[in-house]
Formats: sequence, C-alpha cells, structure tokens
Amino acid sequence: MQYSELTKEELVALYSSLKNEYEDLKGQKLNLDMSRGKPSADQLDLSMDLLKQIIGVYDCKAENGLDCRNYGVLDGLPECKRLFSEMLEVPCENIILGGTSSLALMFDYITQCLLKGSGGLPWSKQSNIKFICNVPGYDRHFSICEYYGIKMISVPLEDDGPDIERITEIIKDPTVKGMFCVPKYSNPTGITYSDEKVRALAALKPAAKDFRVIWDNAYAVHDLNSTPDRLLNIFDACKEFGTEDYFVEFTSTAKISFPGGGVSCIAASENNIKMILSRLNMQTICYDKLNQLRHAKYYQNLEGIKLHMKKHAQIMAPKFNIVLEAFNRELKPYGLAKWTEPNGGYFISLDTLGCSAKRVGELCKSLGVVLTNVGATYPYGVDPDDKNIRIAPSFPTVPELKKAAEVLCLCIKLATIENLV
Amino acid sequence: MQYSELTKEELVALYSSLKNEYEDLKGQKLNLDMSRGKPSADQLDLSMDLLKQIIGVYDCKAENGLDCRNYGVLDGLPECKRLFSEMLEVPCENIILGGTSSLALMFDYITQCLLKGSGGLPWSKQSNIKFICNVPGYDRHFSICEYYGIKMISVPLEDDGPDIERITEIIKDPTVKGMFCVPKYSNPTGITYSDEKVRALAALKPAAKDFRVIWDNAYAVHDLNSTPDRLLNIFDACKEFGTEDYFVEFTSTAKISFPGGGVSCIAASENNIKMILSRLNMQTICYDKLNQLRHAKYYQNLEGIKLHMKKHAQIMAPKFNIVLEAFNRELKPYGLAKWTEPNGGYFISLDTLGCSAKRVGELCKSLGVVLTNVGATYPYGVDPDDKNIRIAPSFPTVPELKKAAEVLCLCIKLATIENLV
Repeated sequence: MQYSELTKEELVALYSSLKNEYEDLKGQKLNLDMSRGKPSADQLDLSMDLLKQIIGVYDCKAENGLDCRNYGVLDGLPECKRLFSEMLEVPCENIILGGTSSLALMFDYITQCLLKGSGGLPWSKQSNIKFICNVPGYDRHFSICEYYGIKMISVPLEDDGPDIERITEIIKDPTVKGMFCVPKYSNPTGITYSDEKVRALAALKPAAKDFRVIWDNAYAVHDLNSTPDRLLNIFDACKEFGTEDYFVEFTSTAKISFPGGGVSCIAASENNIKMILSRLNMQTICYDKLNQLRHAKYYQNLEGIKLHMKKHAQIMAPKFNIVLEAFNRELKPYGLAKWTEPNGGYFISLDTLGCSAKRVGELCKSLGVVLTNVGATYPYGVDPDDKNIRIAPSFPTVPELKKAAEVLCLCIKLATIENLV
Repeated sequence: MQYSELTKEELVALYSSLKNEYEDLKGQKLNLDMSRGKPSADQLDLSMDLLKQIIGVYDCKAENGLDCRNYGVLDGLPECKRLFSEMLEVPCENIILGGTSSLALMFDYITQCLLKGSGGLPWSKQSNIKFICNVPGYDRHFSICEYYGIKMISVPLEDDGPDIERITEIIKDPTVKGMFCVPKYSNPTGITYSDEKVRALAALKPAAKDFRVIWDNAYAVHDLNSTPDRLLNIFDACKEFGTEDYFVEFTSTAKISFPGGGVSCIAASENNIKMILSRLNMQTICYDKLNQLRHAKYYQNLEGIKLHMKKHAQIMAPKFNIVLEAFNRELKPYGLAKWTEPNGGYFISLDTLGCSAKRVGELCKSLGVVLTNVGATYPYGVDPDDKNIRIAPSFPTVPELKKAAEVLCLCIKLATIENLV
C-alpha cells in the first residue's frame, strides 16, 4: 500500500517501528561510502598485469622503435591512439592522448576557449557567456563552469537524451557557448542518447558560431549486462550537417584500468585538433608515453578492452542488482521513489516522490552512510525539486552495499513519513 | 694567432683549406642532433629499476595504506612530496605534485593568472601586460608568453644572475607582471644565481602587487663535477622581505628519471598553494599517484637522488668535456668565440665573436648537424646580436659528439672568415 494512502495513525505507528530499525542501525556504527564512482579494489586488481608490461629496457620501445622513456610525440603514441580510435570509432588523426585525467583535458579545453576562443573572439572577451547543462548531471562539469563564471542553464534530461526543443530555443541566444553531455550511460541517470537525439544534436544550429559541446563519453565501453546500449557516433551524425566542429569528445581508461593512472583522450574535428595541438605545443613537451605504451601492450585492441570490461561487469552487475532489488522490495510497493535501471555506467539515479532528498542524505549520514552530496547533480549544487540522489554502487563490498541499500531505503521511508505527518 | 689579425690572403688560403675539410665532412653524410636537452638512452637505463617498483597489488599501497591505483589525493602522495621537500628545502605543505611535465605546471599557472589573477585583477583583464625574460634563456618559457600575447622584455643575464639594476627600473611599470628565471645551471648559460642576486631578487619591490616570478629550478640536483654550484633557497631569502608570494618554484624528475615519465612539482607560499589548489580542484581529480609512488620507492630520499645523479654525471661530464676541449683547441687560440663552462645542467652556451650565429647554424645543418634553432634562446626567436648558440651535449653518443663538435668548430671558422673577407 502506498504511504500516501495511509492514515496519520498508521503512519505514526509505522514511523515508530522504522525508528527502532534506525536506532538498531545506528548502534552498528556503519561507515559506508556510496558517494563517488570509484571502482572497487577487486576491479583494480583486474588490470594488475598492465603494470608488468614495461619492466625491461626493451619493453620501453614503441612499435616504431621510439624510446618511450624520452621526450617526444605530443599527440600520443600511435599504438595507443589506435586503441582509442577503435573504441570511439574515430580515425587516429582525429585523436590526441593526454595524461591520466580526461577531466583535465576538458578543463584545459574550456580554458583554451576562454583565452583563445573557438573560432570567434576568446570567450573571456565576450560577456555573460552561458552553458547548457543537462540535469541531473555530473557535478565536476558544473564546477568548471562555476569556477570560470560561465552561467549554467539547466535543461532536464529525458529518458532518451537532451530536450532538443528546449535546447533549440536556448541556443538562439549567441551568448550560449556550449553544452555538457554524457551521452552514454549518463552520469547519474545511466540513460544513453537515442540515435534520433544524437542526430538532432548534430543538426542544431546555434546562434553562436563558436558553440562547443563537451561530449564526455566516459562510459563508452562500460556495459553491465548482455543488453548494452549503443551510442550513435556523433561525428558520423555530424557529417550530414557539417557540424563536426561543434563537438569535442573526451574519454579515458580511468574506469577500464586505473582511475589514478589511466590514459585520457580527445577526439575532435581536424580544425579543433589543430587548435588544441597549437596550445598543447606550448603547454607541454609530451604526456606519459610509458603509460600509453603499457595500455596499448596490455589491451592490444578493442576486443581486448571488451573482454576486460566483461570482467568489470561481473563485479559491477551484482552490485547494481543489490541496490535495485532493495529498491524494488522496499520502495516500489509503497510508491516512495522512482529510479533508473541502467545497462551500464557507474550510477543509479533515484528521485524521491514524497520527501526531501536533502533530508534523506542527512538521515543516511547520521547512520554512517555517505551519499553523493544531495544537490550536487544540479548546477550550483541546487536541485530545485530537492528529489535527486545519485547512488554509486561500485566502491563498497557486497555486504557493505546490502547494508547501505537497507539504510537508504529506511531513510527514504522515515523522511517520507516525516513529510506526510 | 687571432683570425682578426690575419691578412686577407692568409684568410683566403685558410678558407680554402677549411673548405676541403668541409667537403670531406659533407661526404660523411652525418646525422647528429645537439638541439635539445634530451638525456641519452644510457642515462635512461639508470632508472630502469624504478619501473619494477610497482608490479604486485601490495606494491600499490602508499605508506598510509592508500591504494594509489584509485582516485584521490590532489596535492600529491606524502612520501613523494617528502622527496621533493628534501630536494628543494621547502616544507611538504608548500608542495604540490603534478603529472609528468613541469612545463605544463608553469603553463597552467600562467593561465590561472590570466583568468583568475594572482591577487589582483585577472591578467587577461589588464592591458598590455609584460614579462621580463633573462636572456639568453629557455625558448619554451618565451613560447608561453608569445602564445598568450604577453610582451617580453629582454634583460641580459650576467655571470652571477639577473641584472638587478635593469630589473629594478623595469618593474616600476605596473604592467610588468613577472619574470622567468632558471636560477641554477641556467638554460642555456649554465650559470647559477649568486646568493647576493637571489637576495636582491627577493628584495625587489615591483609596482605590480600581483607580480610573479616563475622560478624554474629544473636543474636543482644536476651537478656535473665535484665543484657543484649551490643555490640559495629563494623562500628563505624572501622571509626577510615578506615577498614569498612573488615566487613560484617549479621542478621535476624529467632529467632524474624519465623525461617522458617523471613527476613534476610546484613549491610556493601558503597563499599561492591555496589558489593553485582551488584551481586544481576543478581541473582534475588527481595526478598519477602510481608514478609518484614508484619515484618515492625507488629514490627514497635526497641521498638516493644524489647518488643517482652522480651516475648521470659520470655519463654527462665526459660529453661536456669533449665539447669544451674542442672549443679550447679549435676556437680559443683564434679568438673565435666565448662560451660557458658550467658545473651542471644540460647546456653550454656559446657566443660567436666575429660571425653570424645563424650562418653557423646553416653551415652545421648542411653537414647534418642540428643545433638548437639559432635565435631560440631569445624572445620571439630573435637574437639581436645574432651570436648565441645553445649546445646540448647529452643526447649524442661520445663518438657522435666528437664529430659534432668538430663540425661546429669548423663552421664557426668558415663563417668568421666569410665575415672578415
């Protein structure tokens, strides 16, 4: 029976019984973290052989004989570029490899647009520039905008991608310079943009001719089950409309190999690659080619990456299932929330239906369960409906996760009754 | 006998005999590179055991138990910070570790000053900003200024450091925002700033309160012989004058471990560290802690680094000597050039006395010997006196270097006679 249909007396009685559970859990002094999309240690163990790839002097040579220990090769080692080329279905000449962080590549790209422009005046010389943020979204995208004073315009993300109608209206304003997208297994909702939406994005006609979409394809190969989503290649979609310059794609092996020690990647049009290289040529001599070589040697090709990602899925899928089963058992019958059931990625997005998400976060915290800061999935940390909670099931162990899901469900129940009574 | 004292007939006869040597060398179809400060392969071999430090799962744990394969620790791994702290004599809390490139840290710092300022208005909102460049200097410093349209003011470097008098005058202009310094084994002259000069720099009173000196201490431990230079710690010198905020120090292990795979480092005042961290917190989640851990495990402490640098010196010193011996033998008796004899670093700086350095570069190139682009040691690539040549003896093998030095001396002789006749 739905909580909303219970009488006040029934709710009070229920609350008192739930409160007993709460006190019991409090006594357990939990310390569980579902806040960030951190792989678990056993996922990291999967890539340990990667670190054995380069030990002897001979191991340091690239296919073309280059000594990867020394300076040189700004755009990335050819065999490692090939790996990303297969993964993103983008030619090697449209790829640049970076250091360990794709976030840094995005930050540096936006910084470049601010100081050198993206075809027009430097963004820092144009006033009141704005970015579209699909919400709920990735807090670290929003932080970049906030840091640089780029005004964010929220557009609710639909089940199959961005709201094209709203976006079409918004980009009539030439001060709107771009948009953040996580097109596959979106952070946090886990949805993938449909072919139709990708084509519609490729067909956009922004008033700003220096418009740029940060196409953060962080979860390109991060499937969880045997019915994975498929994302249309944005650059293929752009060809029809000649809009390749509007999209700059980013990815990394952070959640394939090591979050602190992977390889990051930009894929972009010839024009954009040229501008990025002309900046990189001032910024550094080269990124870490030894690490690029390690990755190329270990994964070898897309097939190698896919096999590897199946091992990740064997660890991740049961964790997603634990959370979803708890929700289906504890929340669904009572109409307390709705959530996504993604085929990949790192997150489950939950929307409360009858209570404050912030209150849920507080209650969880008081029981030792840390969620992603409630509100963080919206620009400026403010969820206007105070309903969205991002759940990151990857890091805790299975027993920890069972406990954490139990706590979360209990706290949603308590917060909902508090709200109703 | 000095060339300048020879008669025209003597010079013509000499030229003809030298030209025979030239043709002979041309027939040898040489392909030698003295252009960049690249370590040689046998120097890189010295650090191979570094790559064996992290192979098993247990190896990935930091001293404090942290799993270095995962996200976290923005400012750098404590044990690796300690290594740099000992090297630079700066407390760990004033240190941030970066990726493989200290050039990237400098570029990003200047970028930060442009967009967020260094205490005052963002530099990009102030017009006609300028930087002092000590010349001859490092071309990649100049490139950053040129890329960002920061006007460069050249100040000739003296044998014991910058020309304080000139600088004192120049910084009366509040649009002069900073200065590039390579204070130890300066690139390319190899000189080290005297204590007096370091103190005078610390005592500077720039009109711009947001003045910043890029203190590029790239060769902090790169001694060549048993009479190494000693650089006064800039932050110690600043204490007396309260000018710590004016100096931001950079270094890396590029030329200790691997140029493509080392660890970079910033050392700065509390204020500056705070501003840099607030940007880094937006730019990335963390740098490569596995590589930081490898370095910490392998070198362990300053003593370990010093022992290691002695092995580098055993390879480097003979190469410096080959070049200097050739100069002393082939150029000195004839008054054709002057040069530095550094106790460390990567370069010898030669000034021609009676010919165009550009012409020498052309002649060398025609014999298959590549020097650093003549002019590159000056802002905008223009050496006003067309005399400076940067020689990088590290990369060629000993026999190659002997040949290259022979070629260089011959070309200086030819160019000088061309000039005299």
